[in-house]
Amino acid sequence: MKKEAMELPSFSSILLLLLCAFTLAEVESVYFPGIYQSSLKKNGKTVKPKIPYKSQYFPQVLDHFTFQPKSYKIFYQKYLINSQYWHKGAPIFVYTGNEGDIDWFAANTGFMLDIAPKFHALLVFIEHRFYGESMPFGKHSYRSAKTLGYLNSQQALADYAVLIRSLKHNLSSEASPVVVFGGSYGGMLAAWFRLKYPHIAIGALASSAPILQFDDITPWSSFYDAVSQDYKDASLNCYEVIKGSWAELNSISANDEGLAEISRHFRACKQVHSINSARDWLWEAFVYTAMVNYPTEANFLMPLPAYPVEEMCKIIDGSSPQSTKLSRAFAAASLYYNYSQTEKCFKLEDETDEHGLSGWNWQACTEMVMPMVVTNESMFPPSSFSYKENAEDCKKQFGVAPRPHWITTEFGGTVSFSDLWCSNWNFSRIFLNFALIYNKNCLNR
Amino acid sequence: MKKEAMELPSFSSILLLLLCAFTLAEVESVYFPGIYQSSLKKNGKTVKPKIPYKSQYFPQVLDHFTFQPKSYKIFYQKYLINSQYWHKGAPIFVYTGNEGDIDWFAANTGFMLDIAPKFHALLVFIEHRFYGESMPFGKHSYRSAKTLGYLNSQQALADYAVLIRSLKHNLSSEASPVVVFGGSYGGMLAAWFRLKYPHIAIGALASSAPILQFDDITPWSSFYDAVSQDYKDASLNCYEVIKGSWAELNSISANDEGLAEISRHFRACKQVHSINSARDWLWEAFVYTAMVNYPTEANFLMPLPAYPVEEMCKIIDGSSPQSTKLSRAFAAASLYYNYSQTEKCFKLEDETDEHGLSGWNWQACTEMVMPMVVTNESMFPPSSFSYKENAEDCKKQFGVAPRPHWITTEFGGTVSFSDLWCSNWNFSRIFLNFALIYNKNCLNR
Repeated sequence: MKKEAMELPSFSSILLLLLCAFTLAEVESVYFPGIYQSSLKKNGKTVKPKIPYKSQYFPQVLDHFTFQPKSYKIFYQKYLINSQYWHKGAPIFVYTGNEGDIDWFAANTGFMLDIAPKFHALLVFIEHRFYGESMPFGKHSYRSAKTLGYLNSQQALADYAVLIRSLKHNLSSEASPVVVFGGSYGGMLAAWFRLKYPHIAIGALASSAPILQFDDITPWSSFYDAVSQDYKDASLNCYEVIKGSWAELNSISANDEGLAEISRHFRACKQVHSINSARDWLWEAFVYTAMVNYPTEANFLMPLPAYPVEEMCKIIDGSSPQSTKLSRAFAAASLYYNYSQTEKCFKLEDETDEHGLSGWNWQACTEMVMPMVVTNESMFPPSSFSYKENAEDCKKQFGVAPRPHWITTEFGGTVSFSDLWCSNWNFSRIFLNFALIYNKNCLNR
Repeated sequence: MKKEAMELPSFSSILLLLLCAFTLAEVESVYFPGIYQSSLKKNGKTVKPKIPYKSQYFPQVLDHFTFQPKSYKIFYQKYLINSQYWHKGAPIFVYTGNEGDIDWFAANTGFMLDIAPKFHALLVFIEHRFYGESMPFGKHSYRSAKTLGYLNSQQALADYAVLIRSLKHNLSSEASPVVVFGGSYGGMLAAWFRLKYPHIAIGALASSAPILQFDDITPWSSFYDAVSQDYKDASLNCYEVIKGSWAELNSISANDEGLAEISRHFRACKQVHSINSARDWLWEAFVYTAMVNYPTEANFLMPLPAYPVEEMCKIIDGSSPQSTKLSRAFAAASLYYNYSQTEKCFKLEDETDEHGLSGWNWQACTEMVMPMVVTNESMFPPSSFSYKENAEDCKKQFGVAPRPHWITTEFGGTVSFSDLWCSNWNFSRIFLNFALIYNKNCLNR
């Protein structure tokens, strides 16, 4: 990579971020999101969301697709259940859990709870293997490719199939129709579950699910183009200021005193060790605010006002014409980090959350290879993607190479998904701009 | 098992036998077919069929569903190809190979060759992993559950998906429609391939494919009832003679000189060591003749006249009324073993073919658990099936237990298979009564 070219977080990281706050870490040219839910931590303590579900644990088989003696190892898969609205024989709504603690997805998926009374539906949220409490090898689950090897989408789908079948049997409700729901990666799983297990699910609601962000199906620039368009739609000046801010940041970094200057400029709690920290800090604010550009005040990744992209652009457009583009970009990004006005300084290099060998990063380095680039049309600095470099990085990190064309072989690409309900809205309590961005990836039939 | 109750070959064995001759062996209560193609051996030499296909070898991934370092091991999967009728862009007909040497299935599947000119089709026969030359661990492939663990239908389907995709890419024929074909277990794979990989195959022709012979979907007695009905349809007396012959056989075995008497009676080349050998010898003749009850003279499992079931019954019905039921059953069975009049004596305990740790038996002991029983309505001696005993036997043999409900979880059961073409005829050069028997298992839409 040339010095001035930036490596932006992979699309796969973005996916994680959609439903999980995280802390960036920089290793080689790949970014690693923290595993999950820094936003759940308050005053250093993890706050468990209050949710109307009972936790259950299902004895699950480690490897559904081989029959070696060790394939038979059992682990306990967590799932949540709410039967308060259920009439026997009525539908079962299943959330196909994604890359994180299932409690958190349940807490943020009000839609299923909202519609349950109307359908007298049983609600089930199944945790994805290797996340939350559903660790096949306990605390050693992330030790190496030998253990992580069992973490992938096909095994997860098979888990769901086995669990749902068992649950229906135990409830003597084999005839209850099952509809699967999911957002982001969970939405991909919901869509793929309907494709692969049509005898188990009669339909799927896949929200914000970029099932076509593989190979060459969708242009690699789509994501950052869409984010940029959000800002351009709010104000052309806003887009241009942000686009111009990166060069100013780079020119400061060329100074001997660059890091100190940047640290002051960004009100960093501690002097930063790398100019990249500031860049990432800005980048995160602009991308994630676009993701959660809800029409109401909300607190998903961060507390934010209604239409936060528009609010950011108002800050930029309303700044003094004498101020630099970088200072205006900083002011806008501060909305993301400090809308609640509680921060006295910013932790640009906050690495207290775990990072590095995260589950999602493993998945992105094996099957979930979603190429993303930033073109000159975008407000972010140009960035390229190379299968070769990606493979080298992943090999270095995990000892195994990605299979970048496996997902389209296994799940297809442009083929239509019949009976897949593909919404451009997420769940009633959160409204995802992201879904609108990726509407083209959804095939309504 | 009571002494007089017989353990009949499992349905899964029958499947193998449909396209492969074999030698019975008796271990515990399970029968083990030899791996394949004793019928290919002439004068002790294996005779390779002459087929209009070129052999190719594809570098295939050992484990598609895990990402451990060892999952990436490559083995060479054999496939056969014929492009003499192909026009680029025209369809690709793929035979999803079953449990044996792919050459043999190609030699016995004239139908695809027959219709290829009309469709300008490319013909491809893909060998199933762990059969023929496609051995992931070479001669050690069958060593234990550690290696055999990778032998199962889902891995095989993924092999086909990867190979087909690569082939289409290399031929620059991504737009060519693919139709999969298969008979018996290969037909199950064809049907399941269409279900699981609809983006790769536009249709499937599954012939004689008992995809519903799992769990409780089809009555466990169906197979032997259908075979018995074949004989009953030919002649009620024939059915009754065969049905009565087993008791006579048992009563002889109670004598001190029973084995010698049986050996004489059955014209055995060498004295038999067990009365079961005679029973199995008769059983094999009646079951397999029903399977290949073609309306023309044919030589599939054995050289046989047209309508061989009817011919057997003519022998029984035409025998002297003074002769015993057992001797009449023997005379009928001799048609199967000696229609060509070349045998001077019969090898009732011919175990020259390999048996025991066969690939199909491994599959039957892991995922392909097809419960079969013989009821009093059948002409065979009553036989039961117990999941528990089956699990104990398999565990003893391979060190792992079956997952008897996995196939219906993974592939469904009574759910209809849209676009699955389910024929009650096999391939133009062979006409399978078996397909008629299992017509109920096929869902035409």
